[in-house]
Amino acid sequence: MTTHDIAVIPGDGIGLEVTPAALEVARAAGRRHGFELRLTEFDWSCERYLREGSMMPADGLERLRGFDAVFLGAVGFPGVPDHVSLWGLLIPIRRAFRQYVNLRPVRLFDGIEAPVRATDIDLVVVRENTEGEYSEIGGRMNRGFPDEMAVQEAVFTRTGVTRVLDYAFGLAGRRRGYLTSATKSNGIVHTLPFWDELVQERAAEHPGVRWDQEHIDALCAKLVLEPGRFDVIVGSNLFGDILSDLAAAVTGSIGIAPSANLNPEREYPSMFEPVHGSAPDIAGQGVANPIGAIWSAAMMLDHLGHGEAAEQIVAAIATVLAKGDVRTRDLGGTAGTDEFTQAVLALLV
Amino acid sequence: MTTHDIAVIPGDGIGLEVTPAALEVARAAGRRHGFELRLTEFDWSCERYLREGSMMPADGLERLRGFDAVFLGAVGFPGVPDHVSLWGLLIPIRRAFRQYVNLRPVRLFDGIEAPVRATDIDLVVVRENTEGEYSEIGGRMNRGFPDEMAVQEAVFTRTGVTRVLDYAFGLAGRRRGYLTSATKSNGIVHTLPFWDELVQERAAEHPGVRWDQEHIDALCAKLVLEPGRFDVIVGSNLFGDILSDLAAAVTGSIGIAPSANLNPEREYPSMFEPVHGSAPDIAGQGVANPIGAIWSAAMMLDHLGHGEAAEQIVAAIATVLAKGDVRTRDLGGTAGTDEFTQAVLALLV
Ligand SMILES: CC(C)[C@H](C(=O)O)[C@@H](O)C(=O)O
Ligand SMILES: CC(C)[C@H](C(=O)O)[C@@H](O)C(=O)O
Repeated sequence: MTTHDIAVIPGDGIGLEVTPAALEVARAAGRRHGFELRLTEFDWSCERYLREGSMMPADGLERLRGFDAVFLGAVGFPGVPDHVSLWGLLIPIRRAFRQYVNLRPVRLFDGIEAPVRATDIDLVVVRENTEGEYSEIGGRMNRGFPDEMAVQEAVFTRTGVTRVLDYAFGLAGRRRGYLTSATKSNGIVHTLPFWDELVQERAAEHPGVRWDQEHIDALCAKLVLEPGRFDVIVGSNLFGDILSDLAAAVTGSIGIAPSANLNPEREYPSMFEPVHGSAPDIAGQGVANPIGAIWSAAMMLDHLGHGEAAEQIVAAIATVLAKGDVRTRDLGGTAGTDEFTQAVLALLV
Repeated sequence: MTTHDIAVIPGDGIGLEVTPAALEVARAAGRRHGFELRLTEFDWSCERYLREGSMMPADGLERLRGFDAVFLGAVGFPGVPDHVSLWGLLIPIRRAFRQYVNLRPVRLFDGIEAPVRATDIDLVVVRENTEGEYSEIGGRMNRGFPDEMAVQEAVFTRTGVTRVLDYAFGLAGRRRGYLTSATKSNGIVHTLPFWDELVQERAAEHPGVRWDQEHIDALCAKLVLEPGRFDVIVGSNLFGDILSDLAAAVTGSIGIAPSANLNPEREYPSMFEPVHGSAPDIAGQGVANPIGAIWSAAMMLDHLGHGEAAEQIVAAIATVLAKGDVRTRDLGGTAGTDEFTQAVLALLV
């Protein structure tokens, strides 16, 4: 029996509720497909920060390094600033483990009422996850004076852009063969023309994939007007972040969106996390929608080589949603986290 | 009789068709309200560039300086790169004349089918228009080598941010008293925390305005899920660009969106232009939707002190759309540019 070592960081708020739900589903799939997940839990969180002064121990990254994957629930707590919760845990993991692909699939499920008039949406946003606009380089001068200013350097490297583009083209080749690149080279004239050139360059290496590019403003508009036409969308760190939230909203809920932070070379562990936050307003009530977490766990299984198990989990989610009798509150139902999870599990035995 | 001197740059493509339509409507409003527009046309365009090697003459900005306002149709032509058409005309005008407010109203009109299930949308995006992410500072090194990189500096100044925020708070105060600031200070840690601080600072000076802030990813999602809750949204150059296109799409067409590039101090002329591009695919056929241009002309009249005339024009657009018998092709009708314009004019006599 194959065993995979998983580092589990439930985090804060509803992270503590959706994480066990997701891992229960993943383990059930394992029983069916002949693999095991060995879970090691870490209490790294804003609560830990309030108690001990840091989100994770000083050797936190070292401790994660040996695992086959990391599963993260959600981090964030009222009163703990983002630069602590995100830059003290989430972002260092993405960067230290060179998880340069942030993968965010978006689908329209039967049984979820989408806010847009759309029929068929099945796309993946591939977001660059380690450089770009989210850079540590920059600062501020003349604090408090009329001539105060802040600058921030966006950094795009050939290595960084090429590798995420190659991943996206490859993914498009395994899907419907169509890639859209998000740009804004008409307004942002240093980094994005470089991005565009590299897209051209990589496209030549992937002749089987049809591609085009759209400026981010027009692309956001098209995601609302004709979401069904997209297959794989690739964007920089910031653009990918915007596009994936927007695309998820177009299908009716960002509560169900999953994500994978991938190190495709598998030199380091990849990390899987729902897109939603820790939702302190509903935490502790057992009502959180676990779909984002369960789907993220399915992506983890896929990454670990269990593609069929992953597909069955997503199919089970789709079946429960389509039936419609078990739905969490955010989707207009009355079911709790556990009831929904049991409905998915019932389809996996 | 008051006379206003207007510099008219029809530009390229459908700019040549919607500009005369818009100015005919503006002049009709002038006859009714006792003012005159003296129009001076400039053929600055991609066609001029192909003929003479530049979008505008070397003293172009000097020539515009004395006008009361600039009206621009659209620029862009297949084969002419953006850095020529935009950075050779549009962006220099915005910057030289310190048009630091880019104002983009978005409304849901009766008679236009919106792609989202929404009832009441009436919001304005206030976009910072001279600094931020669209900066000239940056460059590239190690061209063609594996270690090639491009950097681009986003620059936010206290002066630049404060003045656009004050405009936005002031506008919110004259509207429904609610401002939303677009940020991403959780990921972009130098410039946007500075923006957030200045929002707090300016909010204290505008106690009558309720305000909140949203990260750009979540804000885009909310614009789709609950567009009706927004009044004034203020964002940086890039965020404002994205949000205004997205908000326009949510109401069913970016073909009808207008914009004003304002120098609120009136030290320099302001510029008014529809948000749409030159649309080479339909240019020359007389089928372009002139609403974006007509509405932009109404914003120009408002800026010139003719608020009532401006309101009547927008009301006339709304009436024609609601009646529904005269509609351009992009809105599912068969009317041409001229027929639609005549229908608006008929309501202004
Ligand atoms: C053409 C482009 C540079 C421009 C911008 O982003 O400013 C356009 O999208 C706009 O919104 O006016
Ligand atoms: C929390 C924030 C820094 C983060 C991001 O933008 O990367 C989040 O929005 C996400 O998408 O994972």
